[in-house]
Amino acid sequence: MRRFAADRARRAVVASLRGAASSRSAAPSPLAPAPRHPAPPVGAAAMAAALARTMSTAAAGTPPVSLNTINPKVLKCEYAVRGEIVTHAQNLQQELQKNPDSLPFDEILYCNIGNPQSLGQQPVTYFREVLSLCDHPGLLDKSETHALYSSDAIERAWQILEKIPGRATGAYSHSQGIKGLRDEIAAGIAARDGFHASGDNIFLTDGASPAVHMMMQLLIGSEKDGILCPIPQYPLYSASIALHGGSLVPYFLDEETGWGLEIDELKKQLEEARSKGITVRALVVINPGNPTGQVLAEENQNKIVEFCKNEGLVLLADEVYQENIYVEDKQFHSFKKIARSLGYTDDDLPLVSFQSVSKGYYGECGKRGGYMEITGFSPEVREQIYKLASVNLCSNVSGQILASLVMNPPKAGDESFESFMVERDGILSSLARRAKALEEAFNSLEGITCNKAEGAMYLFPRLHLSQKAIGAAQAAGTAPDAYYAKRLLEATGIVIVPGSGFGQVPGTWHFRCTILPQEDKIPAIISRFKEFHEKFMDEFRD
Amino acid sequence: MRRFAADRARRAVVASLRGAASSRSAAPSPLAPAPRHPAPPVGAAAMAAALARTMSTAAAGTPPVSLNTINPKVLKCEYAVRGEIVTHAQNLQQELQKNPDSLPFDEILYCNIGNPQSLGQQPVTYFREVLSLCDHPGLLDKSETHALYSSDAIERAWQILEKIPGRATGAYSHSQGIKGLRDEIAAGIAARDGFHASGDNIFLTDGASPAVHMMMQLLIGSEKDGILCPIPQYPLYSASIALHGGSLVPYFLDEETGWGLEIDELKKQLEEARSKGITVRALVVINPGNPTGQVLAEENQNKIVEFCKNEGLVLLADEVYQENIYVEDKQFHSFKKIARSLGYTDDDLPLVSFQSVSKGYYGECGKRGGYMEITGFSPEVREQIYKLASVNLCSNVSGQILASLVMNPPKAGDESFESFMVERDGILSSLARRAKALEEAFNSLEGITCNKAEGAMYLFPRLHLSQKAIGAAQAAGTAPDAYYAKRLLEATGIVIVPGSGFGQVPGTWHFRCTILPQEDKIPAIISRFKEFHEKFMDEFRD
Repeated sequence: MRRFAADRARRAVVASLRGAASSRSAAPSPLAPAPRHPAPPVGAAAMAAALARTMSTAAAGTPPVSLNTINPKVLKCEYAVRGEIVTHAQNLQQELQKNPDSLPFDEILYCNIGNPQSLGQQPVTYFREVLSLCDHPGLLDKSETHALYSSDAIERAWQILEKIPGRATGAYSHSQGIKGLRDEIAAGIAARDGFHASGDNIFLTDGASPAVHMMMQLLIGSEKDGILCPIPQYPLYSASIALHGGSLVPYFLDEETGWGLEIDELKKQLEEARSKGITVRALVVINPGNPTGQVLAEENQNKIVEFCKNEGLVLLADEVYQENIYVEDKQFHSFKKIARSLGYTDDDLPLVSFQSVSKGYYGECGKRGGYMEITGFSPEVREQIYKLASVNLCSNVSGQILASLVMNPPKAGDESFESFMVERDGILSSLARRAKALEEAFNSLEGITCNKAEGAMYLFPRLHLSQKAIGAAQAAGTAPDAYYAKRLLEATGIVIVPGSGFGQVPGTWHFRCTILPQEDKIPAIISRFKEFHEKFMDEFRD
Repeated sequence: MRRFAADRARRAVVASLRGAASSRSAAPSPLAPAPRHPAPPVGAAAMAAALARTMSTAAAGTPPVSLNTINPKVLKCEYAVRGEIVTHAQNLQQELQKNPDSLPFDEILYCNIGNPQSLGQQPVTYFREVLSLCDHPGLLDKSETHALYSSDAIERAWQILEKIPGRATGAYSHSQGIKGLRDEIAAGIAARDGFHASGDNIFLTDGASPAVHMMMQLLIGSEKDGILCPIPQYPLYSASIALHGGSLVPYFLDEETGWGLEIDELKKQLEEARSKGITVRALVVINPGNPTGQVLAEENQNKIVEFCKNEGLVLLADEVYQENIYVEDKQFHSFKKIARSLGYTDDDLPLVSFQSVSKGYYGECGKRGGYMEITGFSPEVREQIYKLASVNLCSNVSGQILASLVMNPPKAGDESFESFMVERDGILSSLARRAKALEEAFNSLEGITCNKAEGAMYLFPRLHLSQKAIGAAQAAGTAPDAYYAKRLLEATGIVIVPGSGFGQVPGTWHFRCTILPQEDKIPAIISRFKEFHEKFMDEFRD
């Protein structure tokens, strides 16, 4: 019955619309007024209206949305970490599910993205206990709960609920995040840095990515606004700058010195951008580096802070890998600590530090928690940042809770402390071993050189390809490193991201490979990789 | 020691930078080449460079970021739901905490925002049980778990984990969301509408807001791109259009006919926009209405679909209040169901439906779950939408799980079904009673008229203000409805949002008030409101 009534309604409406359409199409010229409009516009406006009508009605046969009509900034934006090679891998995975014997490997190994739990890393028990209790606070009153949860997790869940107005974990929070959780994060930052931090400066976000977008949205008004970004860089930055219509001002990290960040290079690129009429607004520094894995030396960081101070730049510090340090001679120092150690206060330097629950030893990517700490902005500008945050209401509360937990994990004496430390250190020391094993494997191969991963979750080896291989890539209409990555995927199931997705010195070729496959799989990965690589080198020997 | 070393480093760096700065400031004119640059640029580029240098260095005394240098689109954007009046309320709340007797009320009642759990609504038990289990999957293997969780929640958590690759709730998911959960949502949509739905068309998002932003980002390339929006509207739309630099093309809902959406008005505004050279890309329809609470009749929806089809517009259907219907003579029909009932397929009409876990009877705002279902876009354009989603990696997995739960709640026969229905119906029937009580109270007052809330979570009463009141507002430098809202807040602690934040016919004044305070508080709210309003009317009688 409904269907019949609907059909009838449709016929009636279609008939009435047909009348309108035919009267329109019968119009002798696009300039004639359309008869169905009671008060047709006149003059130039009428011409424009009639033309627009003709051009944009469905009757003209053009679809309402096409690549020609969408925002060109969206077209321009690229994000290789989930780009073509990953789509290809997903297709192969479906192929494998249908015909397990159809490919020369039995699983796809996603080394394209820093997503530890997708490769088998287990979540930290204490964090999950607290989240589980906060999701179902009714449990906290029940005695049976003690059989399933550690007592300090129960205690922590109580403390967190007390910080949430009305204990309402299902309510929108303050747009910066729950004040009590921000204060806890600030306390964690202060303990880390030895300098004061304030919950008022924390903006909790759904991972670090929305925070980066928010700052780009604030700072970029047109293509005349430039952002200094490392090359190679994590493509979130290039994508966000493209989406907001700004200019990426590249500075090259020096592969020869372990991906060193040279102040002279920053200065050179800044001057060059300025000579083109670009106002450089900010400097992005990723430390520990992504995709490059280097950890900045304190002295180097001092110079970077002075550079920003002197040149009037906002320092956007991507510090999401702050827990991921694998070498004994390096330590993480936040840029805020560096700035405060140099004696600079809130009045001297606008500084944003991004942190995420997706990285570290916790690797809770799916929870989408994170924050930015902003200092050195005027109250009026902060108000604008708050407004941007408020348009999206707030970040997810579980992510907020988790961010407060990772910045204040269990302490000595807590029931969970020992087991927590075993889990934490187990993950971090295993990551260090994996980084070393993969780096050594890459360096043992002909035509690959690879800097050490001092931190983060990646290696970024350089491919020294033959002219013949480069020619084969050109013939296939693709960049040489993309060609290599595709061949590797098809031969082994290993997914890496071509260096071209991150940027690199022109004429050099790289790839990013995470160090995240579980340790027991590393030997097999290395041998599969080695076998492929040797064949590839033989195939394309000049 | 560290501090000492840092100070020393600072002095050294500052000295070296001072040299550079003084050589720069000593330059006789901004056009002279800066001596410290090894290869000074020449000609016009050099002039531009030198000028830029002078203008943007910190030495010039201007802060790196100010309201003059940030993105003007950010300045332009407004979001009244968390705007000035709410900031004022937060300040009063702090005041109350410090001095409980300092104000003529003892609590702030936030009726500004659809945030049910912040006002005491309890979460639906079954949903929280499942979330709690998915957060800590280790519980699923333990027999003690059965003492704390219902057996169907345990079963559902198992099913959900099976849908997540590697059971990894802590991993980034597919950028559209976990495929198995999208399929489940599609099944829920199909059951709701009686028409096929596909998980491939679902994009899970952190609430509906990021989905709206994504579509605006896609559709708006410049101020020549227009979006037809209802007035009054939910200010997310005006904010998002402003942030993306497009033109809001208003169409007015007709207050006289219960906030009716008239096709003639759509046509008139479309033509007018086109006559100004604006290409209208999409039509936003909010059904049930926010802030207006009307529920569209099926016949009206048919005409809206035909209008979009005929005019080549994307239909952006905000359907987040689909569960919130409070009158017996109205039903929710999704626009996709309407389009399919009219016989239109994917080829005929690009259509986006937004849904959120924040609304309905569940009201899980803090979880930031939601999705958009997109149909009728070409594969190339879909690829661009996917790319936008991928830049943010994925939405939070708990929100994804919850979105799949609200679209597939417990069914008859499930252990939790009866208690679930009691909770659900209790919330919905109470909301209906609250809507009616508040509407009747408003309509009983001199100088207020108020349409029925057929759905959603708001009333949008009209204030018929005296010239004297309007004069007082002008003298205070504010809009009359904002003046009223401020006075109400200061007298009663009740927070409402002035109609000017949503848009209204010029010369009319309204406010939005949620129906969300708990039912036992409604009588007191009404009497506080009434007392204030009567005094206000007396004070400003012409």
